[in-house]
Amino acid sequence: MPKLMEEEVFMAFATYATVVLLKMLLMAPLTAYCRFTRGAFANDEDVALKPAEERKKLVRTHPDVERVRRCHLNDLENVVPFVLVGLLYALTGPQLSTALLHFRVFAGCRIFHSISYIFALPQPSRALAWLVGLLVTLSMAYSVLSKVLVL
Amino acid sequence: MPKLMEEEVFMAFATYATVVLLKMLLMAPLTAYCRFTRGAFANDEDVALKPAEERKKLVRTHPDVERVRRCHLNDLENVVPFVLVGLLYALTGPQLSTALLHFRVFAGCRIFHSISYIFALPQPSRALAWLVGLLVTLSMAYSVLSKVLVL
Amino acid sequence: MPKLMEEEVFMAFATYATVVLLKMLLMAPLTAYCRFTRGAFANDEDVALKPAEERKKLVRTHPDVERVRRCHLNDLENVVPFVLVGLLYALTGPQLSTALLHFRVFAGCRIFHSISYIFALPQPSRALAWLVGLLVTLSMAYSVLSKVLVL
Repeated sequence: MPKLMEEEVFMAFATYATVVLLKMLLMAPLTAYCRFTRGAFANDEDVALKPAEERKKLVRTHPDVERVRRCHLNDLENVVPFVLVGLLYALTGPQLSTALLHFRVFAGCRIFHSISYIFALPQPSRALAWLVGLLVTLSMAYSVLSKVLVL
Repeated sequence: MPKLMEEEVFMAFATYATVVLLKMLLMAPLTAYCRFTRGAFANDEDVALKPAEERKKLVRTHPDVERVRRCHLNDLENVVPFVLVGLLYALTGPQLSTALLHFRVFAGCRIFHSISYIFALPQPSRALAWLVGLLVTLSMAYSVLSKVLVL
Repeated sequence: MPKLMEEEVFMAFATYATVVLLKMLLMAPLTAYCRFTRGAFANDEDVALKPAEERKKLVRTHPDVERVRRCHLNDLENVVPFVLVGLLYALTGPQLSTALLHFRVFAGCRIFHSISYIFALPQPSRALAWLVGLLVTLSMAYSVLSKVLVL
């Protein structure tokens, strides 16, 4: 195993990055599940096996499907930058405890964000989960720039 | 050249990651091509040079453009996690043959996924391409977590 | 600090990658700002505190919000591949001056792209900013494949 993966900060990063990426990947099967249970598909070929008279009606949007898709897109917009900035941050050699704090808060926020989005919990639960996650990424970005700035 | 790029597993990862990212990047020019040939634009300023009476009609959606855009978004949702999880996976020092199997199956799946999406091939061709690609990423994520778990 | 972050090319990559990711992250608060000022929300729970008769009208799309969202999605489609390909490119040990040229042109293009998208500058300003940014990523991808190809 290469040396990077012997450093504890990098191992912690690898763990949390994989966890939040797995959480993001789970949104796709959830979208598929909603499409089937709600009968709302995006493509003509997806409903080719249904009776001809039903097909037209099944290619449509459904509020539950759109909700999961918005949640998925929000993950893309937030989880991917976290992993990319977090990778650079882990390479700058932060304190293990500080790094773990960042990673744990972010992972907790994003899991709670998905729950509050999918179950439509009252605001500001979702907004706060999103904001705190964003602040974690900004804090890591600041830490990277303060250590390696080469313009 | 730094040491990472002397390891064969990492070179294989770099190759396949670049290939699938290039495939994803190609979706943008394809969207542009469809917008021009179908006459379906997203912004008023994009049709400013057209005759005034045509402009309003050209800012619209078109099924072919939306199809390419869905394919592009699906790439974002699947290719980006593959590259990120794959990077961590390559750093954990897997067997070259196992790693190559993962990378090759994923690249093949995503190329076939795009073909089956754009040409609207009968299902379950697209669904299978998506599912097998997802399973490859999940397999790499499992491998990473089983080697480096630091919570 | 691990050795990677002592190499100047990698430090330059870390700087520019963080800058363009920060730019991308800023699109989310901008979307939120537009949603509040234009009164156009995506979810029922987001307007729960408004008077009952106003709620229905506030869950809607608005051209300004959709414009910022398209700009955000375009960032996802272009900035994320740049950072991923750029990471591999930086690891192949390019000349510092060549690498800096790639990173600077891309960062400039994407900042100008967002300005031209949000303020709806006349075309082809936005199209050119997008195209040159794409060419930078393609150039780095070509450089990676020419150095590490392992199929």
